[in-house]
Amino acid sequence: MEHIRHSLAHLLAAAIKELYPETKPTIGPAIENGFYYDFEFPTPINEKDLEKIERKMKDILSTWTSFEGREVSADEAREYFKDNQYKLELIDELAEKGEKITLYTSGEFTDLCRGGHSDNLSKAIPADAFVLDRIAGAYWRGDEKNTMLTRIYGLAFSTKEELEAYFTQQKEAEARDHRKLGKELDLFTFSDLVGSGLPLFTPKGTLIRDLIVDKISSIQSRFGFQKVTIPHITKKDLYETSGHWDKFGDELFKVKGKSDTEFVMKPMNCPHHTQIYASRMRSYKDLPIRFAETTMVYRDEQPGELLGLARVRSITQDDGHVFCRPDQISQEIENITLVIKEFYTSLGMFEEGKFWVSLSVRDSENLDKYLGDSSLWDTAEAELESVAKKLSLPYKRIEGEAAFYGPKLDFMFEDALGRERQLATAQLDFIMPDRFSLEYTDQDGSKKTPVMIHRAIAGSLERFMAVMIEHFAGAFPLWLSPVQVRILPIADAHHEYGKEILVALKEKGIRAELDDRSESLGKKIRSSKEEKVPYVLVIGDKERDEKTVTIEGREGKVGTQSIEDTITFLLEKIAHKS
Amino acid sequence: MEHIRHSLAHLLAAAIKELYPETKPTIGPAIENGFYYDFEFPTPINEKDLEKIERKMKDILSTWTSFEGREVSADEAREYFKDNQYKLELIDELAEKGEKITLYTSGEFTDLCRGGHSDNLSKAIPADAFVLDRIAGAYWRGDEKNTMLTRIYGLAFSTKEELEAYFTQQKEAEARDHRKLGKELDLFTFSDLVGSGLPLFTPKGTLIRDLIVDKISSIQSRFGFQKVTIPHITKKDLYETSGHWDKFGDELFKVKGKSDTEFVMKPMNCPHHTQIYASRMRSYKDLPIRFAETTMVYRDEQPGELLGLARVRSITQDDGHVFCRPDQISQEIENITLVIKEFYTSLGMFEEGKFWVSLSVRDSENLDKYLGDSSLWDTAEAELESVAKKLSLPYKRIEGEAAFYGPKLDFMFEDALGRERQLATAQLDFIMPDRFSLEYTDQDGSKKTPVMIHRAIAGSLERFMAVMIEHFAGAFPLWLSPVQVRILPIADAHHEYGKEILVALKEKGIRAELDDRSESLGKKIRSSKEEKVPYVLVIGDKERDEKTVTIEGREGKVGTQSIEDTITFLLEKIAHKS
Repeated sequence: MEHIRHSLAHLLAAAIKELYPETKPTIGPAIENGFYYDFEFPTPINEKDLEKIERKMKDILSTWTSFEGREVSADEAREYFKDNQYKLELIDELAEKGEKITLYTSGEFTDLCRGGHSDNLSKAIPADAFVLDRIAGAYWRGDEKNTMLTRIYGLAFSTKEELEAYFTQQKEAEARDHRKLGKELDLFTFSDLVGSGLPLFTPKGTLIRDLIVDKISSIQSRFGFQKVTIPHITKKDLYETSGHWDKFGDELFKVKGKSDTEFVMKPMNCPHHTQIYASRMRSYKDLPIRFAETTMVYRDEQPGELLGLARVRSITQDDGHVFCRPDQISQEIENITLVIKEFYTSLGMFEEGKFWVSLSVRDSENLDKYLGDSSLWDTAEAELESVAKKLSLPYKRIEGEAAFYGPKLDFMFEDALGRERQLATAQLDFIMPDRFSLEYTDQDGSKKTPVMIHRAIAGSLERFMAVMIEHFAGAFPLWLSPVQVRILPIADAHHEYGKEILVALKEKGIRAELDDRSESLGKKIRSSKEEKVPYVLVIGDKERDEKTVTIEGREGKVGTQSIEDTITFLLEKIAHKS
Repeated sequence: MEHIRHSLAHLLAAAIKELYPETKPTIGPAIENGFYYDFEFPTPINEKDLEKIERKMKDILSTWTSFEGREVSADEAREYFKDNQYKLELIDELAEKGEKITLYTSGEFTDLCRGGHSDNLSKAIPADAFVLDRIAGAYWRGDEKNTMLTRIYGLAFSTKEELEAYFTQQKEAEARDHRKLGKELDLFTFSDLVGSGLPLFTPKGTLIRDLIVDKISSIQSRFGFQKVTIPHITKKDLYETSGHWDKFGDELFKVKGKSDTEFVMKPMNCPHHTQIYASRMRSYKDLPIRFAETTMVYRDEQPGELLGLARVRSITQDDGHVFCRPDQISQEIENITLVIKEFYTSLGMFEEGKFWVSLSVRDSENLDKYLGDSSLWDTAEAELESVAKKLSLPYKRIEGEAAFYGPKLDFMFEDALGRERQLATAQLDFIMPDRFSLEYTDQDGSKKTPVMIHRAIAGSLERFMAVMIEHFAGAFPLWLSPVQVRILPIADAHHEYGKEILVALKEKGIRAELDDRSESLGKKIRSSKEEKVPYVLVIGDKERDEKTVTIEGREGKVGTQSIEDTITFLLEKIAHKS
């Protein structure tokens, strides 16, 4: 498809040259889902012109039955593009590097190009499987000091059906956009005074965060994880010791007080956690020691890269570190995997065909890229694989994907739109304990270095929330819904009874609200639907007199039943995480 | 007492001049609990010499029956102190400022001095009511560019008994020192790589933090407080708007990424919280809105001011802000007070004679120091007082203690050593909502500015933990103990039964441990006592065979009873927060 998309970029340039002969084409590559081409137009065009250009492309398409390339000298090329300073610049560069210069022709259009086309574009793609999408400004070569060009984007797929499916998916993705839903559901906000990439979570958003954290915490505490607490800054000395000072470089936020001490905001928690380990003597019997902490780390992402909660500067990590003996690696990895399994099962995401696991091991061709004892690597890689087998994980062994400090298991989940997200992870680390001179006293009295395991269940809470909002389109499972039930009195006369029910539900820990606005039932139901409230309890004369409620879920009416039965029904649903 | 202590400093200098005639006295003030004097000694002295000096002081004391001052000219003074460059420097300064220069004489010793002495020192203090305490180095005038002098500290009280009581209290305070106990109980640690004033909390320390936070949270959620979540940094714009930029000045940690944007670490949370309020339209019906958050703020304290957890750079605030209408102030202050009452009652600290409340109002002589509508101030001050009366708080109205932005209630608690600590607070704020242009739509459709209430229950969690550790001497109430029960098998043969009990206790949420070391029962009991574990369950043959445990508390043996009865006993104790 890449060759077709690249060829379509040529076709776009051909159409432009016919319609606007004075235009100077610059470069036009294939991209994900389509292609673009950057032009210098003599007079600006706008989105309305796209239809005409697209029609011209389709006219020309039938004549593009071949793509012919030929090598030319730099001077020949310069002569051909003598009026186009952009192409001349490219030619000069190619000549300077001594690379060969090729011109490609299809139909009546010739372009300076490296090649990689569809031989017969007219047969390769149906005319209804591509469209021109939109116009944007783009600096020549991405440098804001250069001329601003006009970029025309196109979408292209193998068939009309695929193109339509793409549109449908796009529309669905827009409807589920977590930035839009986050605002509608009042989950988080941004403030110009605080800054971009620094979300502020409302009570409802905080509740969702806490429910996720509590859920993970309640699972992993059974596996011996204990919460610790660290500050958000450190002297740079900590990262000079860990080796992160060079690695993180300009992603680090530097912190300065009135003294000369150089502080930084932590971009990760592991070095701090090693210092808690190091605060006491540890014996082989004390291991494994398992620290967990949900805490914000800070990374200075470029403003242009920030995107709602999906990419932020204040990143809440659901972090954890195990310090163990080499003979405990296997059991610990198994335990972490069981935590991941239980958590994602409660979200309905740990299902066959909906996730897979990357067993990331060394690149066998470049073993010297990896630090640490090679036999420990061998054992650990084999153990990760045997855990994956034992737990019947759908895993793929991926060579070269290990970190330089150890192999890992990365868990990839598919969301409701089929988009893959790497969320959970368990990574071995043979290096950091050594850098911090961590020790334990072994049975024979000798000093040994523990192995460290980094693990994340949800990963970044912000990104996880973005994924969850889009996956569920805001209609969270009952246990994760900020408001689980809303009571809707038909008229003001039913408010008193509504309050009674509210108290009864709250007493049982059910997150309930009473909609006591003087609005019609229809409007109240619509509000609840917009806010994706899982259940509404409608109450009128009949319900009040009979001490019942009419309960309605997202999938329709459940029935009319007593308050007690309703509470039992809801508690059961909550307990089953449905 | 200050005059006596100051006179004793003269007496110390007199003794030094007799024993070491070449010594140059510099300055010697009265301080809390005693006095000091800084000298330039020709040859160094050490702590062993203090006894001799103290004896000499007591010898001279009987001759000091008067203290006579006389004003002299600068030249006279210069002549008198011609060999002492320190005194000469002081004389030059006095002369330059045109201040009068006085010399004071008692016995045979004359010193340059401003006055403020005991007329008859020999009668004013018994010879056994003061001692020399210790020696320290001190730069002349506190400037490290100057000569290092020798400072001799003395302690002085009205009577021998008071001096002894001071020693006893000091010893008790040392035994309870939270830095010492924090290490022994493994609650927190510091790392040189991370930096001073930045504590790292171990699992046990984190558990105590969480128990405190959960306790407050469970109380205040009944009063409508909702958790929110904010990042730890902000653009400086936020504090320029709030007015804190100038006020906090060099206590602020500045944060720099790769861009030009100037960030700072938050030294408080209120400005961030206003931005969550401001993210939506609010109606009079939505108020009060109550945000709560336990989060770290950062202030750049001087390294010399840092002290264990009592003074840190990363300060976890148990923070909360209410946005309400003026007519809701009274009810909200009452609610906050009820939260404070319930929390401190669970710690046994909300008891008559053990706390008092400062009703901090304007200085009636300087009303123009305070910002905001004066009639709103009048009403609010009256309302705070009526809440204090209604809830029978032991309050004192303190004029001039209000913040410039509003009146407040400060709660002062006495710890086990009788030291007073300001912990909880509720402060009205008439200014910040206005600075951030916060609004709500009133019943008549007009836009109004809400009132803000800042409230803290525990205050800084670090300082609160320091206070609690010292107050309880590490022997926390059962509900706050990291380990509530430890099972002590008499021999290895009882380990199996011990595990059974452990599972049963944990299932009920009791924080239990099994001491399965192969140590004697005596040693196991001692370990538990050192770690201040509230209850131990001793199990031997008899207990195993009869399925019982012998339960022992900090105050002695409780008895031998079944596991079920023991669980019931413990759960009841935990529920009653005893």
